[in-house]
Amino acid sequence: MLQIRDGELCVLLWRRALPPYEGFWALPGGALGVGEDLGVSIRRQLAQKVDVRDLAHLEQLETRSDPERDPRHRTLATAYLGLVPADVDPIVPADTGWHPAADLPAMAFDHASVVRSGRRRLRAKLGYTNVGFALAPPEFTMSQLSGYYCSALGHDVAATNLRRVLLRRGQIEETGRSVPSGRSGGRPAALFRFRDRNLQITDEFAVLRPPNAS
Amino acid sequence: MLQIRDGELCVLLWRRALPPYEGFWALPGGALGVGEDLGVSIRRQLAQKVDVRDLAHLEQLETRSDPERDPRHRTLATAYLGLVPADVDPIVPADTGWHPAADLPAMAFDHASVVRSGRRRLRAKLGYTNVGFALAPPEFTMSQLSGYYCSALGHDVAATNLRRVLLRRGQIEETGRSVPSGRSGGRPAALFRFRDRNLQITDEFAVLRPPNAS
Repeated sequence: MLQIRDGELCVLLWRRALPPYEGFWALPGGALGVGEDLGVSIRRQLAQKVDVRDLAHLEQLETRSDPERDPRHRTLATAYLGLVPADVDPIVPADTGWHPAADLPAMAFDHASVVRSGRRRLRAKLGYTNVGFALAPPEFTMSQLSGYYCSALGHDVAATNLRRVLLRRGQIEETGRSVPSGRSGGRPAALFRFRDRNLQITDEFAVLRPPNAS
Repeated sequence: MLQIRDGELCVLLWRRALPPYEGFWALPGGALGVGEDLGVSIRRQLAQKVDVRDLAHLEQLETRSDPERDPRHRTLATAYLGLVPADVDPIVPADTGWHPAADLPAMAFDHASVVRSGRRRLRAKLGYTNVGFALAPPEFTMSQLSGYYCSALGHDVAATNLRRVLLRRGQIEETGRSVPSGRSGGRPAALFRFRDRNLQITDEFAVLRPPNAS
């Protein structure tokens, strides 16, 4: 699970209490139960760590299958990418905490590589989908939103450019409300929201859209 | 594996000779070997059906885990999406053949649903990546390319619009060569090629690109 916290893209990890990798940090997860599919399983396991209602988006990332990935026995792991909006602060167990995705502690198994893969997926999807809805709170200023994009992408994003392209792509809209700018004498900052809080490809390549799509 | 054949998006299937689903059609695949990861396994299994050098692109699609998907016992299946360019005609075994993806025969397990999922992935990626390189031959006219896009997307794509957007996105370039137009008295048609035959996201959302990317 990824969330932007204090301007940094962070990942939820728990500290392993038992070998292998005792004391190392791992992604939340566990064995697939009898009669469970992967989607049910990941939701059950996340519910044991955080309130799953805090998740704004969840998608299957990839299945890892290196025969040597678990020193005990052969294990395949299907990783999911979950996103938590910046305005919620899930209550997490004592052995669990948020860590900057760009500066991971000593990680168990191939989990550091899974985090890098999830970060790449998020960065790519920010470019061609509306997935920003899952990072942002329900309403935000463009200054806040460009901060979230900057944290997720790892480079600066100008608020004015971001506003222009997200409006043109129909991803965001003005709420009609505003907040004080925070700078003394500054104009109030307009509040925006994402128009859709389900994942959509919002690419501009109109020639490739079905003829009847809006 | 998907390929555009005679203007139709087709999928390679083999006919099961044994129960369960005897006589039904299935995607090529099989059990993960000891010491094999999924990528090695899928390449080995495809090599038993077709020459894998014919594959221009291969990516992990998704892992299916419905507890009821195999009537014999619990099985998870990780599906891959493979693309074969339109100009090759792989030699396939006698029990194997290409079928229109939009008009599948009676399919085993959840394989019809996996094909639909692969088709959706391909359609989406045509909109934000250069994945067309894996459908097209090394050189093509815009009329041919728009035909491939039309087959993959399931709706008409005007060659002139396609040419404009793919050039603007830097996906394709002119080869400097041309072929007779085929129409009597028509001008020769210019031959194009994809500039890169590895998957790239070619989205125009420049504000989200890293500052030093071209």
